[in-house]
Formats: sequence, C-alpha cells, structure tokens
Amino acid sequence: MSVSESVEVTGHLMDSGILSRILDDIREYDGDYAIDRFDVGHEAGDTSRATITVTAEDDEALQRLLMRLQTRGVNQVDPGEAAVREAEQDGVFPDGFYSTTNLATKIRLDGRWFDVENPEMDCGLVVEAHDDGRRVYTLPMSDVRTGMQVVCGASGIKVTVPVVDKSQESFGFMESDVSSEKPQAVLVRQVADGMREAKAAGKKVLWVGGPGVVHTGAAPALVSMVDAGFVDVLFAGNALATHDIESSLYGTSLGVDLAQGRGVEHGHEHHIRALNTIRKQGSIKAAVDSGILTGGIMHALVTHEKPFVLVGSVRDDGPLPDVYTDVIEGQRAMRAEIKDVGFCLMVATMLHSVATGNILPASIPLVCVDINPATVTKLADRGSSQARGIVTDVGLFLEQLAIELVPDYRRS
Amino acid sequence: MSVSESVEVTGHLMDSGILSRILDDIREYDGDYAIDRFDVGHEAGDTSRATITVTAEDDEALQRLLMRLQTRGVNQVDPGEAAVREAEQDGVFPDGFYSTTNLATKIRLDGRWFDVENPEMDCGLVVEAHDDGRRVYTLPMSDVRTGMQVVCGASGIKVTVPVVDKSQESFGFMESDVSSEKPQAVLVRQVADGMREAKAAGKKVLWVGGPGVVHTGAAPALVSMVDAGFVDVLFAGNALATHDIESSLYGTSLGVDLAQGRGVEHGHEHHIRALNTIRKQGSIKAAVDSGILTGGIMHALVTHEKPFVLVGSVRDDGPLPDVYTDVIEGQRAMRAEIKDVGFCLMVATMLHSVATGNILPASIPLVCVDINPATVTKLADRGSSQARGIVTDVGLFLEQLAIELVPDYRRS
Amino acid sequence: MSVSESVEVTGHLMDSGILSRILDDIREYDGDYAIDRFDVGHEAGDTSRATITVTAEDDEALQRLLMRLQTRGVNQVDPGEAAVREAEQDGVFPDGFYSTTNLATKIRLDGRWFDVENPEMDCGLVVEAHDDGRRVYTLPMSDVRTGMQVVCGASGIKVTVPVVDKSQESFGFMESDVSSEKPQAVLVRQVADGMREAKAAGKKVLWVGGPGVVHTGAAPALVSMVDAGFVDVLFAGNALATHDIESSLYGTSLGVDLAQGRGVEHGHEHHIRALNTIRKQGSIKAAVDSGILTGGIMHALVTHEKPFVLVGSVRDDGPLPDVYTDVIEGQRAMRAEIKDVGFCLMVATMLHSVATGNILPASIPLVCVDINPATVTKLADRGSSQARGIVTDVGLFLEQLAIELVPDYRRS
Amino acid sequence: MSVSESVEVTGHLMDSGILSRILDDIREYDGDYAIDRFDVGHEAGDTSRATITVTAEDDEALQRLLMRLQTRGVNQVDPGEAAVREAEQDGVFPDGFYSTTNLATKIRLDGRWFDVENPEMDCGLVVEAHDDGRRVYTLPMSDVRTGMQVVCGASGIKVTVPVVDKSQESFGFMESDVSSEKPQAVLVRQVADGMREAKAAGKKVLWVGGPGVVHTGAAPALVSMVDAGFVDVLFAGNALATHDIESSLYGTSLGVDLAQGRGVEHGHEHHIRALNTIRKQGSIKAAVDSGILTGGIMHALVTHEKPFVLVGSVRDDGPLPDVYTDVIEGQRAMRAEIKDVGFCLMVATMLHSVATGNILPASIPLVCVDINPATVTKLADRGSSQARGIVTDVGLFLEQLAIELVPDYRRS
Repeated sequence: MSVSESVEVTGHLMDSGILSRILDDIREYDGDYAIDRFDVGHEAGDTSRATITVTAEDDEALQRLLMRLQTRGVNQVDPGEAAVREAEQDGVFPDGFYSTTNLATKIRLDGRWFDVENPEMDCGLVVEAHDDGRRVYTLPMSDVRTGMQVVCGASGIKVTVPVVDKSQESFGFMESDVSSEKPQAVLVRQVADGMREAKAAGKKVLWVGGPGVVHTGAAPALVSMVDAGFVDVLFAGNALATHDIESSLYGTSLGVDLAQGRGVEHGHEHHIRALNTIRKQGSIKAAVDSGILTGGIMHALVTHEKPFVLVGSVRDDGPLPDVYTDVIEGQRAMRAEIKDVGFCLMVATMLHSVATGNILPASIPLVCVDINPATVTKLADRGSSQARGIVTDVGLFLEQLAIELVPDYRRS
Repeated sequence: MSVSESVEVTGHLMDSGILSRILDDIREYDGDYAIDRFDVGHEAGDTSRATITVTAEDDEALQRLLMRLQTRGVNQVDPGEAAVREAEQDGVFPDGFYSTTNLATKIRLDGRWFDVENPEMDCGLVVEAHDDGRRVYTLPMSDVRTGMQVVCGASGIKVTVPVVDKSQESFGFMESDVSSEKPQAVLVRQVADGMREAKAAGKKVLWVGGPGVVHTGAAPALVSMVDAGFVDVLFAGNALATHDIESSLYGTSLGVDLAQGRGVEHGHEHHIRALNTIRKQGSIKAAVDSGILTGGIMHALVTHEKPFVLVGSVRDDGPLPDVYTDVIEGQRAMRAEIKDVGFCLMVATMLHSVATGNILPASIPLVCVDINPATVTKLADRGSSQARGIVTDVGLFLEQLAIELVPDYRRS
Repeated sequence: MSVSESVEVTGHLMDSGILSRILDDIREYDGDYAIDRFDVGHEAGDTSRATITVTAEDDEALQRLLMRLQTRGVNQVDPGEAAVREAEQDGVFPDGFYSTTNLATKIRLDGRWFDVENPEMDCGLVVEAHDDGRRVYTLPMSDVRTGMQVVCGASGIKVTVPVVDKSQESFGFMESDVSSEKPQAVLVRQVADGMREAKAAGKKVLWVGGPGVVHTGAAPALVSMVDAGFVDVLFAGNALATHDIESSLYGTSLGVDLAQGRGVEHGHEHHIRALNTIRKQGSIKAAVDSGILTGGIMHALVTHEKPFVLVGSVRDDGPLPDVYTDVIEGQRAMRAEIKDVGFCLMVATMLHSVATGNILPASIPLVCVDINPATVTKLADRGSSQARGIVTDVGLFLEQLAIELVPDYRRS
Repeated sequence: MSVSESVEVTGHLMDSGILSRILDDIREYDGDYAIDRFDVGHEAGDTSRATITVTAEDDEALQRLLMRLQTRGVNQVDPGEAAVREAEQDGVFPDGFYSTTNLATKIRLDGRWFDVENPEMDCGLVVEAHDDGRRVYTLPMSDVRTGMQVVCGASGIKVTVPVVDKSQESFGFMESDVSSEKPQAVLVRQVADGMREAKAAGKKVLWVGGPGVVHTGAAPALVSMVDAGFVDVLFAGNALATHDIESSLYGTSLGVDLAQGRGVEHGHEHHIRALNTIRKQGSIKAAVDSGILTGGIMHALVTHEKPFVLVGSVRDDGPLPDVYTDVIEGQRAMRAEIKDVGFCLMVATMLHSVATGNILPASIPLVCVDINPATVTKLADRGSSQARGIVTDVGLFLEQLAIELVPDYRRS
C-alpha cells in the first residue's frame, strides 16, 4: 500500500534544470509523482512554483525520498512537526535519522521554527536544551553520543536554496559546465573580485591547496597574496607543506631548478630530510622562530599568524608535526576554522577539496581550480552544487591572480 | 674544497636508461663526475659495469648524493663500514641518517654484512642487538624512539637491483611507458599469469582498490576472484567498502540500476545510512554474522576470512567502524600484512596505490590498473620503479580477469 | 523596435532539461521571452506543452533566434509559408538562408507541407521541381549552385524531435552524462542489442573507427564482427587502414609484438613501406586480389564486399590510394553511404566521429566509445544530441562486443 | 643465413638515453648486436662514441633496420655508395627505397657527398641532374613521378643529430618529459626568448593553432603578437579561422559573452552564417578589403600581409574559401612556407601540430602548448624528437606570452 505526500519547490525552475533532477530522484527511489500545480511567471526572471504529489511504496521509503528531495530544496507543503529520537549508542544515529543537506535549514518543534546552526551535508541534527530555549545543530555521525536528541524522518524540516540573481552575480559564467575552453583571463578577474567582496564584507578567504601549487612554481605568487591579506586560512595536507618547506630549506639547488624551469623528479631524499628537520624543531612555527625556516608559504602564514589545518593521508611520509594524523580530528579542526569564511578557493587538490566541500554550507561561494577536469566534476557530484570549476594551469592562474590582487606583485 | 668517492653500478646499463638517470641525479645534486671505466659486454644480454668518480662540494653533499644514487642501485666501490648514531628524540632521526630505498640492502658493521629486514623506501635503518648477534631493519620516521641506533651516511651500505630477464619475464611488455594503446586482452592474461605464479609459489596476492571497482559494476567479478582464492588481502579506504555495502544493503533499487546500466549519482542518503547501519553493528564482520550484510566484496572477504585494511582519509563520511582513522596506525596495519605477498594488483585508486607502493619492497611485482594515466605515472614517480601500468577500463578489465582466473565465472 | 513571435514546444519538457536550454538560447541571442501557457501532465510520463512569446530587437535577429530554437524542437505556433530565394553564386547561400538541424523537418510551400529529404545539420534547404510536384532536400554550402531555390528565414518550417520512451529504450542509461564509472559489461550488451535490432529491421550498421582499434589489439575482434555481418560500412581515415595493413604485411615482427603485448612505438619505416606497397597495387582491393594483403580489417571488408570510405587529413603519410584527399569529396562519399543506416558505432576517433555526426540525421542511434571523455563531449557539443557516450577501453570493449555478437568468437 | 654491418654513433650517449632506444630498435626488428667498442669521455660533457655490429637475418631486413637506426643518428662505419633506382610508377617509390628522417642528411654518389635539401621525415630521396652537377632532395610519396631517380637501401647515407649544449640551451627544462607540474611562468619567458632569438637571427616564427586559441579568449593576445611582428606565418584549419571570424562578425553578442566569461556553446547558426558571408566575398582578404571583416586574428594577418595556410579536414563546415580542401595540396602549401622558419610554436591543435611536425627538419626548435598531455606525447611519438611540450592553459599562456613580448600589451 503506497503512501503520498504533497511537496513544493520554488525558484527559477525552468531555466535551472532543477525540476528534471527532482523527477530523476523520484524515479531513482522507485517513487511516483503527479504534478498538481505549476505556476510559471510570465516574464523572464519571474520565479515559478510547483506543487507535486510524491508517492512511495511505504512510509520508510517515502521519508527517505523526502530527505533526498530536500537536497534539491523541495519542502513538504504541510511540514508538520519534527520527530526526535534519542541516540542509543555513541557514534550511531537512531534509525531513520534525518540526513542533512548543506542548505540553510529550519526545524519545527512544538510549533516553533528553529534555525539549524552550521549547515553541513551528511550529518544528523541534534536538538539540545539551551539557555531558556532550544538549539538545533548539525553533528557528524562520529561525534554523536548516547542520549543526544536526534531529528528523525523528513517532517518538520524546511530548507532554503540560495537564490542566484543571474544578471548580477559574478560567477554566472561558470554555471553551465566545467570546461577548459573559456576565456581564462576574465575568470581570474572574477575570482579576484569574489575575494575582494568577501574581504570588504569582513569575511575570511579560505584556501585549500595541493602540492601542485609548489610544483608549478606558484609559491611566490601565493606568498604575495598571504602578505597582502588574501589568505586567511589554509587547508592542506602533508604534501603541500613539506614540498614548500623542502623548497625553502634546500633552496640553492631546488631554487635554481625552479628558476630555470627544469622539472625535478620527486627527490625523496630532500623530502624525507626536510620532514626530519621540522620534526626535530617540534612544529613549523618553532622552525620559523628558530630561524631555520625563512621563506615559502608556510613561513608566510606563520609570520602573519594565519591559521592552517594540515590533515594527513595514508600515503604521507613523516609527517610534519603539525599534521593531524587522525582524519576525524582533522575534520574537527577544519570545522573550527570555517566560521566567517566568505569565499573559498580550492587549488590543485581533489582530496582536500572534497573534504572541504563536505563541511561548507552551500551559501559560501566556492571556486575550484585544477588542470584535471575530473577534480571539479567530482566536487559537484559530491553535493557541493555551488562549486564553480576552472580547468586551467594552476601556476599561471595564481600568477595572474597575484597580478590582479597585489598591486606591486610582479615576476622577478 | 670538493670531495670524491668512487662508485660502481652493474646491469643492463645501456638498454635500461639507468645510466642517464644516474648522471641526471648527479647534476641535480650539483655534483660532478668522471667515468673511470666502462666494461661493456659484447653480446646482447651481457651485463655491463661502470666505475664512476663522483664529486661534490663537501662531505655532507657527497653523502646525500651517494644516498640518492643508491636508489638507482649504485654502490661505493669501497663501501667501508656503516656509521651508527643514537636517536635523541622520539620520532626524529639523527642528522645525516641514511634514507632507505626499497631495494634489497646490506649493511656492514664491524666487517660483517647484515641483510636489512623488510626493505621499504624513505625509512631509516635501525641496528639492534638480537639473540647472539645483531639485526638491521627499516623503521619509518614516526616510529623511531630515543636511544635507537640509526645508520647515518652512505658508507657501509650495499643495495641490489632485481635483475629482470627481458626475454622471459611476463611483464616485459609494460616496460617502456604508460599507454592506453596496447593490446589489452594480452595484458589481462599476463596479470592472471602473475597471480597464478604467486599462488603456485605459496605467496599471497595483495589487492589495492578504490570505489571505481564498485561503480563500474565489477564487484561480482571481484567476488568471484575472492571465492576462487585470488584475493588474499585487500587494502582500501572507507569509500570502496561503503559503496560495496551500500550496494548490498539497498540492493533492490541500486541493484536494478546497476543491472540496467544507469549511472547513479552519488546518493548521499543511501551512503550515510549504510554507514550508520554498520556502525550500529560494531564492525563489518558483526554485520555479516548477524545476517545484515549478505553480499558483495566485503562479505566475501569476511566469509573467506581474508584480511583487509581500510585506512581513512579526510574526505570520509562515517567512517565504517573497521576504518583506521589514524593514517599512521593505518600504515602500520598495512605493513603487518605485506609479509609473503608475491603479487600486488592496484585498481582504481591513486591514494591507496601510492601508499602501498611506499611500503612494498621493489622485489614484489606490482601492476596498477586505472583509466587515468596520471595514477600510474604518479606511482612510478614516487619510486615504485617496478610498477607496471595498464590504462584501461576497470570494469571490463576485472570482468576479463575473472573469466581468465575463474573457470565457471560468466556474466549472468 | 522589437518584434515577437509565438512559439511552442511539446515533450517531456520538465524531465529532459530542454526548457532550460531553450531559455539559455534566448538569452544568448539577446532575446526576451514570456511564457504564455504551460500545460503540464499530471502523471509521470505525460508530455507537456509550452507556448512562449519570443522577442528580439529586429526581424533579422528574430529569424536567427527562431532558427536556433528549432534545433531544440521549437516551432512557430503559426508557421506561415516558407520563403524561398535564389542562390546568386556557386557555393554561397542567399543571405538569411535557413540553417538546418538534423531533425525530421517539414516545409510549407503554397499551403502544402513537404518532408525534407535526408535531414542533416548546418546545411541549406533546396526546393526543386520534381516530377509533378516539388521536393525539398538538404544541401551543404559547398554544393549549392547559382539559380537553386533556397529556403530563407524561419517561417513555414516544422521540426520534430524523436520521442524517447525512457522505460523501454535500451540506451536510456547513457542519458545523463559521460562517465567512466558505469557498469561497462551492461553497456556492451546494450550496444550489441542495438546492432541486432538494426539488423533485424533490415538496416545497416555503420562503424566509424580510428587507429586505436588496431593499437589496442582489437583488430581480430573487429574482423570477427565483419565476418558475422555486423559491419555494413566503415568510415575511417588513412591511419586506421594503414596501421591495419602494416600489421598484416609485417606480421611476423609486429604480430609477435602484438601477441606479446609489447608497446611498439610508431615505426615509420614499416608504415611508409606499407603505404608504398598498396599504392603500387593501385588499391586495397587490388592488393587483396593479388594475394599481397591476406588479413586484417580492410581485407575482411574487401572479402565481404562491404563498402568503406577513407577520408584523408593533413597529417597523412602516403596516403593509401583509396583515400579521398579532398575532404569535401570525402564528405560526399560518406553521405552516399548513410542511406538505410540503422545504428552507428564510433570507436576511438574524434575527427571522423564528429564528421559523421555532422551528416547523420538525429533519428539514427549513435554510440561513441573512447577512452578519452573529451571525444564524447565534443560530439554532443557539436549538435549530435542523440549521441550516447561510453568512456572505456576500446580494446576490451570490442573484445567483449565480439563475444556478445559472434557465437564462436573466442580469444585464441 | 644472417648478414651484418658495422655502425657507429657519437654524442652524449649515456646521458641521453639514446643507446637504450637504439638497442630497443634492434630487438624490435628481430636483429642482434654486439658492441665492439665504446669510447667514453672521462669528464661530464665529453661526447662518447660506440661502434656496434648489427646483425639481421637477410639483407632486406638488415637494410630496413639500418634505415630505422638512422632515425637515431646511427651511421654505417663504412657507408659505401648510395644506390639509386628509377621510379616506375607515379606516386610509388621503387621497392627498398630509403625512408628519410628529419635530420641533416648527406648522400654519397660516385665518391662525393651531397647535402640533402629540405630534410623531412617519411619521404624518399630524389637525385637529379642540376646545373653542372647533381642535387638530392626529399620528396613525399605522392609527388614522385615515373623516371625519377630514387635512393634505395641504407648505403651511402649519413645523418647528423643536432648537438644540444645542455648548459646553455634555453629549452633544457623540457627535456625529461611532458608535465603539467612545472614552473609555468619560467616556461613562458623561455618561449619568448626562443622567438626573440629567431627574429634576431633573421628567421621566421611559425605558429600552428587550433580553435582553442579563440575559445580561451586569447585572440586579442595573439593579435597583439601579430602586430608586434612575432607571427610570420600561421598554419591552421578551417575551425580557428572561422571561429575567429565569427567572433568578429557577431561581435556584439559573442563579444559580450567573451568579455563576461560565459561559456558559449557552439552556436552553429552563427558559425554557418559567418562561413557563408566570407564565401560570398570570395576570400578572407576580400572580406577585409571590403570592410566586412574588421578585427581578429585573420584580419591582423591580412593587414600585416603575413601568410597563412588553412588546410581542411573531414569535419569542416563550409569551408572558408581560403581553405585547401585537398589535404595533399595543403601539405604542399605548408612546405612552401617553412623556408627560413627559425622557431615554431604549436598551440591547441593535435591535427595540425602533427602535420607540421611531419614536414619540419629536426633542427628547428619546436614548442607544443596544450592542456591535453596526449597532444604533446603524440607529437614526440611521431618522430618530432625536438618537440618540447608545455601542458598548460592556452588562454593564460598566450596572455602571459603577450605580456612578455609586447611592451604595451595589457589586459583591457
């Protein structure tokens, strides 16, 4: 015996392709639908609104389909009240827990709507007594503890998709798809604008980087942007930091090679010795303070007291003493730094880009730069629908970006 | 004032390109060289032998260059005695520590040569009193403890490059380079032969896999090879195991989709719920024992009591309870399983392939299969010179491999 | 002063994403729109119908926008009569000529609708007196002659988009996008089904191939499919045919290499000598007849009297005597062979795939197989919207396809 | 019964990897070898010299192997006299014809050495009475005529490999391989230096370009370099020229889109209409003269009276009236323009890059820029061993190159 629910969605339904994705979801979950009403604006720019009856074979299937549809911004016409159940095990949500989106979310409890704090996808929602009321916040599965109150099912929940004004928004260009055949110089300027806007609004600029930043010779450009205040926080792995430090410590030879443009094969011996040197000091900061590390990206961040979060991976040598070897602790450290981020630029790393995309709310503009189209595609597939991709050369891109952002930056 | 050392190298120097790489290394380290003697066989197949005087500007530079050259199989003509120094800090090697290769290595102490246990690249060498003598073994940087005796400098060390008989060796085909334009059906057969030879010699077959194994529909083929005894141990991350389990748990819908060939976008809701279900059980094995998990790759491994090591990464959801969230502990768990491995196949994962390449001795045949040429290139660049690459479709490759290895395997 | 026209479109508008592409087109052409009416079916599977008023700044802009929209299947509500003008120059259409789509098209002349013969994109429409009436057919720009009657503007024209029944159609799987992470074994079977259906309906199977077919060792598989009657016509360039012939002529060495799986670098000397040998004979058929060419793909085609069209490119050596060195003549020769084609498989070639996509009507199922995702994407971008892409290994794919199609095919 | 020949090769044999490629060739041709003598310099920088006895199973096999080895710079110790035979058919070389390399080549006839005019790979050598003596020149297979005297076999022929002084040469950086992870800003400067050196030496700079130049927004940068005299001749296809012209003719809309960075899907209607417009004028120059074409790359070339050669391909629409539709005639037109070329830059095109690489002597520096690594690899595989590859973003690269080369160029 099948069960149904009436849902609605509002927005630029027809020119955003969102409706086709909604209907695909319904089919994928073996559901069915009937379109009850479809109000379409007459003019270009009007928003439209659809009301759809969604049917699934039983209530569990229906609840799960409704949760899925919420990732598209689809809400129940009559959301009702949120159901809450207690977690019975550490690190395990109750059955039927509500799996979150990264959209702005509200929860109805006892007739009152509560804003969910720090929206993040693929988490649960915890309700907690708070001062004279209640608070609702996202919590990753590994952090749930016995006795916590967790929202279950799809009732009593409303999400809001950020509305994009196509005519004004600077990143409109990247909407359609991921391509290497786009006027790249313009893209550089628009990324620069995005960063300036974030800074003007008192927000932080978050960078996520891979070792390609160093290999393509872009470290000086990045250092100049750190100096100029356009890097507020950096997320990376052991590799970016180690290659950067290795390049500073063994500057004579490696520096010459970078300057001459010779491709240097991975010199493990340099690499492993740089790691040992910093481990001996106890931390990157200690190596800067003791005068051992005198240049490069990590040096610039330490000097400007900008935070960085380095999270390890299974292929790491060393690692540097600053690296979180426990990835779950690393995720927590990243979460602690995303408050007030207003713009995020991801450069030359798939692993840390996806990890950052996982924890950022959909409202933060996100640009991913990589020479490999797959990195950008993967990011969007994982749910970071706000991600805009630029397939280009990382070295030249950062060089151009520094020219845009840093008045006195020029290539020596 | 410059210092010199006489070194020698033996092998198929001229037709392996090894000599040009040696001379490149010397230049890269700002050293100089003179070729003192070059004995070349007259016939095809003869080995040749070169004696070279290597010069660097000071002893430290020379020692480092000599260590670098040992990764190519170059030894000192008069190796002398190994120098040993005590580690003064946990997790930090003494300055000038010998950075290991993954080649078979011997150390001379007090005039006697000791074989190094478990060769692994980018480690240190620890000398330890042992029964009535001494043992020398590799140790990663993070595991060194104060007071351990660590080999320093390049003296007293000899490495041996595995000699490949081109005319016989089955993997000769892949020598030259990484290419997608090679007769793929033959490659399948040769990988199958490599596995059969390893099994016949009483060795284990190690698999390293990424989630692409599941996405390309190759799980049934892999299951059939687990059943037939061609998978002795699996290294993977959270993603392969979770996608595999997700596909088993939500079999009806996802199964239908796989069977119909429809591309299913990452359904986070399925994914996150599968993780929660296994976490509730406490482990994958517990989920199998309780009858909750009844199919797929992980089920097959548990059923056949084959070990697996799942190591986490910063982008993980959940993760599964079996996943090592600390990557250094994960590396230790992987090291514990590589004993007696006689063949290693890496499929559809760059992260875990590089991690495994890091800890395997050069003597173990290694084949890396990926549709992305960069994965294979990266592996070789990291020092796994024995790695052979096949750029092909993972799904079809595993399907063909199962047809080769499992007599009654056929596509349903 | 702006001008408007009322247009309509029918189909699965909401779940096909077609509407968003229509509105993108209008914006791209600096037009404006108002949605007058939008009838949406209530049930899944119902078609919907939209009526839209399209506005542009002058009549020329409007006409061009209307032509653009017809590539999406959008017709004028009141199409009126087609306007016809005389070509005044050989090889040049009159200004304002109607630029064709590859959809089924009708033209209204004097109140009567005429079907357009051989729909092809980017051509003009020529009206000609014919027996006791008139005929309308597509003509490429280079073939128009002074005095021909050419349709101009967008009036009096109706196109029909092929309706795809998602639940039944075998190629539904590939709709959404191009991906290397799909269950490949299923795709093989569906391509085989497509070929069998075409043959059962008395239609021809057209193959388009690049030299990768030979390099990946798939020639024997392709030969077996020629023998079994699944290759009715082949479009290729000089390279596929020459590499195939080279491999047959210098079979001893090259054959051994293929059998052993060694990657053979392009041996120019073999290549150029193979070309000279066939040129000496006068044609590939002559080389077969004289007993010089005794195996391979081209031999099989000649033996079974299956036509092939080889069109040259600027990078060609030789070329073979059968190659059209004039590309426009080559296109004509290809056009002459597409009659009665019911299925088209494109393998490992971007150049000839795009060329074939340009001349095929949208009604012919088209599958493009390549290890490079860009090839498939490019094909769809060029307007072959019916193209389905499979990103996989060509060698293994053709091996599997032969196993599916040819009962006694097995790898030797 | 096997036959042998003594050959020699001179150069930086050990650090160039050339010897291993020579021995690979011998094995590939089923030959055998013995190294008779190997003189190796003592110091870094000394050249070495090897004498090798090469054996094959019969004379035909030996001759072919010797020709193959000449592509590596290997000459016979006792070259003897060149054998000459008459062509008996138009477009067909005599059996056993000498297949050329792109290296500087000499031919011995009656005891005298003649320089071969215009070295080009994969051609034959024609000997002709000339004034009071003889001349020897390369001729492509399709141009040979009955009665011409063609060199056969490998005797009497000497080739010279250009010697590269690694310490000085500006393109040393790119030696090792093709990589996207190199300091790109340095590469830009070195390409600029290469062009300046060519111009300073009174040589021409040849550009080979694909439509990606226009799509990435780099047309203004290229126009500025045409204006500044750094583009002496352009080789391209129909696509680059048509997209460039389309962008100039429909400037308002397309121009705005380029400026805003919006990705524009291939608008066939613009494209086909631009072609028709130029065809109506009769040529690109006529369109410039009549004031119809007023900007872009082709306009700049016409204005500065710089030659261009556009050669068609089977996927072309139109084509433009300036396009050679016969590819063999197109090759001839390209050959006619390569005299005095001192530097060649290939950008964003595989087809025309390979075509140009085929006809250029090895002595001309060649840099290939593409975001796709396969393009560069393919070029080197085809025999253009002097080709240096830069895997980068074409738009940003040309932007940076214009900044380097054109003092007052800046982005508007």
